[in-house]
Amino acid sequence: MSDARPDIVTAAVLVIGDEILSGRTKDRNIGYIAEYCTAIGIDLREVRVVSDDEGAIVEALDALRHKYSYVFTTGGIGPTHDDITADCVAKAFGVPLDIHPDVVAILKERLAKMGGELNEARLRMARIPRGAALVPNKVSGAPGFWTGNVITMAGIPTVMQAMLDEVAPKLKTGAKLMSETIRADAKEGDVGSELGAIAKAHPEAIIGSYPFFDDKLGPNTNIVVRARDAAKLAAAKSAVEAMLAQVRAKIAAG
Amino acid sequence: MSDARPDIVTAAVLVIGDEILSGRTKDRNIGYIAEYCTAIGIDLREVRVVSDDEGAIVEALDALRHKYSYVFTTGGIGPTHDDITADCVAKAFGVPLDIHPDVVAILKERLAKMGGELNEARLRMARIPRGAALVPNKVSGAPGFWTGNVITMAGIPTVMQAMLDEVAPKLKTGAKLMSETIRADAKEGDVGSELGAIAKAHPEAIIGSYPFFDDKLGPNTNIVVRARDAAKLAAAKSAVEAMLAQVRAKIAAG
Repeated sequence: MSDARPDIVTAAVLVIGDEILSGRTKDRNIGYIAEYCTAIGIDLREVRVVSDDEGAIVEALDALRHKYSYVFTTGGIGPTHDDITADCVAKAFGVPLDIHPDVVAILKERLAKMGGELNEARLRMARIPRGAALVPNKVSGAPGFWTGNVITMAGIPTVMQAMLDEVAPKLKTGAKLMSETIRADAKEGDVGSELGAIAKAHPEAIIGSYPFFDDKLGPNTNIVVRARDAAKLAAAKSAVEAMLAQVRAKIAAG
Repeated sequence: MSDARPDIVTAAVLVIGDEILSGRTKDRNIGYIAEYCTAIGIDLREVRVVSDDEGAIVEALDALRHKYSYVFTTGGIGPTHDDITADCVAKAFGVPLDIHPDVVAILKERLAKMGGELNEARLRMARIPRGAALVPNKVSGAPGFWTGNVITMAGIPTVMQAMLDEVAPKLKTGAKLMSETIRADAKEGDVGSELGAIAKAHPEAIIGSYPFFDDKLGPNTNIVVRARDAAKLAAAKSAVEAMLAQVRAKIAAG
């Protein structure tokens, strides 16, 4: 898979937060964004999780934004001292952070309804890298933002999901990677070489093999065939099915 | 926190597998390893997820192994063509892959019990970077391996967990980061500036703030104070509690 193909759009996810690295909070955003990207035709190529550390965040932002079509960040955009994602995005892009009047208006409106004052802490959430577009947050008000090819979202899963829904219609997308799962009813070690030969003969299909334990049959395998082209997907799937029939017959024959 | 401190041991996790990036499989190893590291006194500093691509895996291995005390990898050590982690570790360290006689013996013993032949595919699992130590696998036989500071484990959570138990007693560990969680009974935006001031006054404590939704009280916050020193932890915790009492009184006074 070459990134130079115009029909391929790539992405990375950057999860920001000490609480994920300490194990206190279990991330639920990576899998969600991964499935979402696959569904809309974006190839998620890499994920990084870093701590609430400016150097680490800026370094990861710079590594990822130059390499992939999009970078989705989650976490670190709340009102406290450890929420430094906006500062880091601004630093990576070399732009100042401005108090964004639209965000101030959103926060004021929400506080009028929910109670609370627009203090210094909450005003942190109005600090937006200059030139960024806001990403609406229908769940809790304070928006994310879209700077260059970096989309900065909240860490709370429900808020992140709402933000992703806002952003998705505006993303460039590529040819979708379609997939078929074939249950092998054979052990992974019994189909490995055969599967490798099929993968070589079908270079435009991506063939993966995932062992699982079946309560009745014992060790079993799911074979996942993926391709951007329906005919190529069907051809690779047929090859896998023909191979499986042979392997099963051989095993049955002892 | 400086890595130069002799009482701090750091680690990174490298998750290898297309199935995680496509969203087909939801990772359950990152959170487990994170909690495990915290419990034994290792600071998990970074996580990366990359696809089954040699270039991507070797690049990540090289970036991480020079930066942290340990790198734990998960995934890509099975019997099929997409299992290329051993090749990548060998390449990163510039050593050949040898068929390891102890692994051959383990596989033969297991196959004699479970059925199946030691074919070319299964023999892939005996390919170990020269000089690496084996990491026993009590669940399914085929071992992981420990090369330099890189510990290569299976992707299947039960197998990975068994391997981590084998490795843990041999790891250098540092001063544990102890932690206390304080329920604020206040909104995050009402304690943000105050918390920032406490964080500044207690530089050896790490203070995090995590909003959650309380069914009775509405938006609420957990404040997590962490430190390697019990007295410093207690001092920061007291400061947070005193601050919270003040904030709550102010809010109650309207």
